[in-house]
This record gives sequence, C-alpha cells and structure tokens, in this order.
Amino acid sequence: MTDSTDPVGPHGAPATPAAGRGLSRFSINQMTVRQLTLPELTEACARLGVPGVGLWREPVQMYGVDAAAKLVRDAGLAVTTLCRGGFLTAAEPAARGRALDDNRAAVDEAAALGTDTLVLVSGGLPPGSRDLPGARERIAEGVGVLAPYARERGVRLAIEPLHPMFAADRCAVSTLGQALDIAERFPAGEVGVVVDTYHVWWDDRAPADVARAGAGGRIHSFQLADWVTPLPAGVLNGRGQLGDGVIDLRAWRERVDGAGYSGPVEVELFNEGLWERDGLEVLAETAMRYVRHVL
Amino acid sequence: MTDSTDPVGPHGAPATPAAGRGLSRFSINQMTVRQLTLPELTEACARLGVPGVGLWREPVQMYGVDAAAKLVRDAGLAVTTLCRGGFLTAAEPAARGRALDDNRAAVDEAAALGTDTLVLVSGGLPPGSRDLPGARERIAEGVGVLAPYARERGVRLAIEPLHPMFAADRCAVSTLGQALDIAERFPAGEVGVVVDTYHVWWDDRAPADVARAGAGGRIHSFQLADWVTPLPAGVLNGRGQLGDGVIDLRAWRERVDGAGYSGPVEVELFNEGLWERDGLEVLAETAMRYVRHVL
Repeated sequence: MTDSTDPVGPHGAPATPAAGRGLSRFSINQMTVRQLTLPELTEACARLGVPGVGLWREPVQMYGVDAAAKLVRDAGLAVTTLCRGGFLTAAEPAARGRALDDNRAAVDEAAALGTDTLVLVSGGLPPGSRDLPGARERIAEGVGVLAPYARERGVRLAIEPLHPMFAADRCAVSTLGQALDIAERFPAGEVGVVVDTYHVWWDDRAPADVARAGAGGRIHSFQLADWVTPLPAGVLNGRGQLGDGVIDLRAWRERVDGAGYSGPVEVELFNEGLWERDGLEVLAETAMRYVRHVL
Repeated sequence: MTDSTDPVGPHGAPATPAAGRGLSRFSINQMTVRQLTLPELTEACARLGVPGVGLWREPVQMYGVDAAAKLVRDAGLAVTTLCRGGFLTAAEPAARGRALDDNRAAVDEAAALGTDTLVLVSGGLPPGSRDLPGARERIAEGVGVLAPYARERGVRLAIEPLHPMFAADRCAVSTLGQALDIAERFPAGEVGVVVDTYHVWWDDRAPADVARAGAGGRIHSFQLADWVTPLPAGVLNGRGQLGDGVIDLRAWRERVDGAGYSGPVEVELFNEGLWERDGLEVLAETAMRYVRHVL
C-alpha cells in the first residue's frame, strides 16, 4: 500500500541509496532465501542495499503480522507483494466460505504490512473433478467477491498465472491471457496480474498479453525466475537462479517496461540448492545476477 | 500409408472382428508396453483384438525394419503412427543436415512399415540458446524441406505440440495453435498435427484449435494419456493410465470426433509403474480403460 506522503514510486519502489548501484527496482521474495529469519532478511537487505521484499503469509504469521510490519518499516523496506491469497476453486459451499474468509485475512495482512499487492494463486481442480472451465469460473467469482473488500483496504489483487504443469493441482489459470480475461472483468485498480517469467516464458502469446496488461494498467507485479532442466520431482522447487537457465530475462524486463511498467522487479526462486546455502550469500548472488542478466 | 485396395478406413484403421467389442479405433502405442518385444506385442494385439499399433523407431530398428513390417502385416495390424522424427532446432549447419537426414530415414521407415503418419517431436532449444522464436522458425523451415520428400513416399508429417514443460529441452512447439501455425504453411495432405490429450488438456484455446485442425483436415493423429500428479523427476515418464487422472478423456474424444476426425485413437503412456508390470496385463487393462473412459 503506497502512501502519497512517502518518497516512493507508483508501485512502492522507494528511492534508496542503492538506486545508483542498479538495485533501485530490485525486490527479493522471501521464499528465495527462506533460510533467513525475518530479522536476518531485513538486516541483509539493509546491508546489501536491497530496497524491497516480497513476503509470504506463513513466516509473517509466525513472526507476528504487526511485528513484521514494524520490522520492515523500521528497516525502510518496501513490501512489494504479499504471497499469497487465492485457492478459490472449491465447489462445496463450506470450503468455499473458508477460502473466502482466508483471503479476507490475507488482504488484512497485506494492508497491515503496507503493501498494495496481494498475489493470488488461484487453485487447481478440487478432488475428483475434471472440470477445468468450471474451476476457472469459480476463481473469477471469488475474485469478484474479494475485490471490493480489498479495494476498501487499499490492496490490489494480482492474479498470477502459473505454468500449465501446475494446472491440475495448484492453479487452473495457466496463461497471462486467461489471467487478464478474469482481471478485466473488474477495475484495474482492483484486479491485475502478475507477470512471472518462469510461468509465461514459453508462451508465444505472452508478449501480446504483456502489452495488453500494460495498456490496461494491470501489471501489478513483475517477478523473475529462470527455467532450468531437468525438473525435480513434484516440479515445484526447480526454479533457476537468474542466468542459469534458458529465459532471456533482459528481453522480458524490457518487454514489461515497454508496456509501461516501472515498478519493482521481484526475484522469487523456489530452489532446494539455494535453500541449502548461506542466505546472505544467496541474496548477494541474486542481486548480482539481477544486475548482470536483467538490467 | 493406406492402400486403396485394402479394407481400411481413411486413416489406416482396419475393419477387424474387434469392431463389435468397441476396439475398432483403438491403437496401442508401443511405448505404453515397451516391456514387450515386437513379436510379443503383435501376438498380444491379436489375442486381445487390438487392431492398431503405434511404433517407435528404435525398437523397430533393433528388430529390423523389414522384419517388423512383415510381422505387423502378417498379424493384420494397422501401423497407426511411427514415432518419431523431428528435433529440427539445431542452428549449426552440420547438425542441421544430420537432423534432416535422420528425418528422411524416418520417412523411409514409416513407408516401409505401411503407416501414413510420421509423428514429429520438434526439438528444444539448442545448447546455450535462449531464442525460442528462432527455434520455432527453424522447425518450420525443416518441415518445409521434409514435406515433399515425405509426400513422395505416401507419408504425412504430424507435428506434435508437447506440453509447455518440455519447451526448453524437447519441443519448442507447445500448443496446438503453434503446431497449426506451422502446418498450415503446407498442404494438409503433407503436414498436420497430433492431438495428444496429455499435452493440450490444460489449454483453454485447444478446443477451438481442434475445430480449426479438423476443418482443415489436419488431425493426423489422436493420442491419449491422462494427467496425474505429482509429476516425477524429469517429468517425462509420468503419464497416467486412462481414468487415473484429471482429464475428461471422453469429452476430448467427442471434441476431436466432432471436428470430423474418424481415425485411430492411440494410447501412448510413458509410465514407470506400467513398465514394471506384465505387458499383456497392461495392454488388456489399457483396452478396458479405453472402453470405459473414452468410448
């Protein structure tokens, strides 16, 4: 959530001393260095001149939402996103009600943390279901219920299309085009999309959809990870360090910028190898890779 | 390759005694039961009333192409496809020449085996490359070189889009729409597409592209596998037995039929669990699953 009295850009990127060193738009997603505690993370960001962080609900809840909010505020860090709401595909009324309640709590946490962007991972097929269009329609309905609640609290919902390999069990929204089809049912200030290179890099239609999203003011978050093979079992934790894979990250950054985006560039890596290393070292490496492969 | 003097349908599906038992369009891809030798496979098909097989080049070459051709011919089996040509993304001239030569050999083998359909798996990014559009363009160029050679031998090229999780290392053609964009540069009798449920089930644009492919006479093969999670490491051998996963296989069969397709329905499963079992038992199970979940 941006505050017009703060010296921040339109997407929460603060003007910091790091700007001159190329990190002015860089944000580290907490999952990239999940081995760090929240105080370790904020201290590491301060040491390295990293101006933004993307946070996750579970570690924030464990630390305490208000305490986490104070910690990042005192460190002068922008919270670029909160991950994540969503999982809106349940068909059964009670489960659906619980999902909506949980999303309202996520909105409240986003507002408390001072971020204007809640990332939504939409959810996969309910157990026993083979109805993908039905799941997608329930996602749109859920977003419609949540958008006004979020708007009142200064939070935008950002629908993240996940790679089609997650369509069954994690996210029935598989392309930027699908995410925009849902987002565009609502005002851009309420609902937009996440462009994450890991999920959209393969899609020949994604460049046109980036332009479409930018023209509509709907790029609410831009995230980076590289694509490396072979994929690990379960395929969740195989995201590559920037530069280790096949994605032309600079071309994607230029494409997103060219669509009118000027906000944070958040690096979100789920990678067992990175998690086994020293977190401060991984953060420093990630920042260097960002400068080398993205700027 | 169909012969107008044989009692076969337009796509090589023979009229067999099995027709009345629901298997008239059923074809078993050799990889589904790769634990069976070629003679074991043909004998099992005869015992179970399976009228068609999809063959793979490597086991056919090991057995001998002419001997394999005689074996399936004597068993009265239709060879519905030969897998596979393709891998046309090399940029380096010598590697490119070798790939084209290998594809010409694949066409010759298809003709010798009596199938009219050579499946193309297009190939991924060359080592060190991040240029996905370039790879796709080289695929189209390669298809253009091969199509006349194949036509002269009565063989159609069938471009198979593979799931986007294979875009980097196996197949830069990730959607039915992309496959059609390439195929439609050539006559439908020369170049078409493979519709494989495993690769396209997640794609909200695929139904429209099935209709487009059918209207153009370009559905050259229809293959089935189910989508099960979690995916195994490497993601290659995680295709589910029909009915074990989340794909509405009957809806896809009806969709493809509705687009005007009346040819073989080939079941191609890469699945370590199935490979560890008795091959005859797996073939019988697959035929039963086909009747239950697809017809």
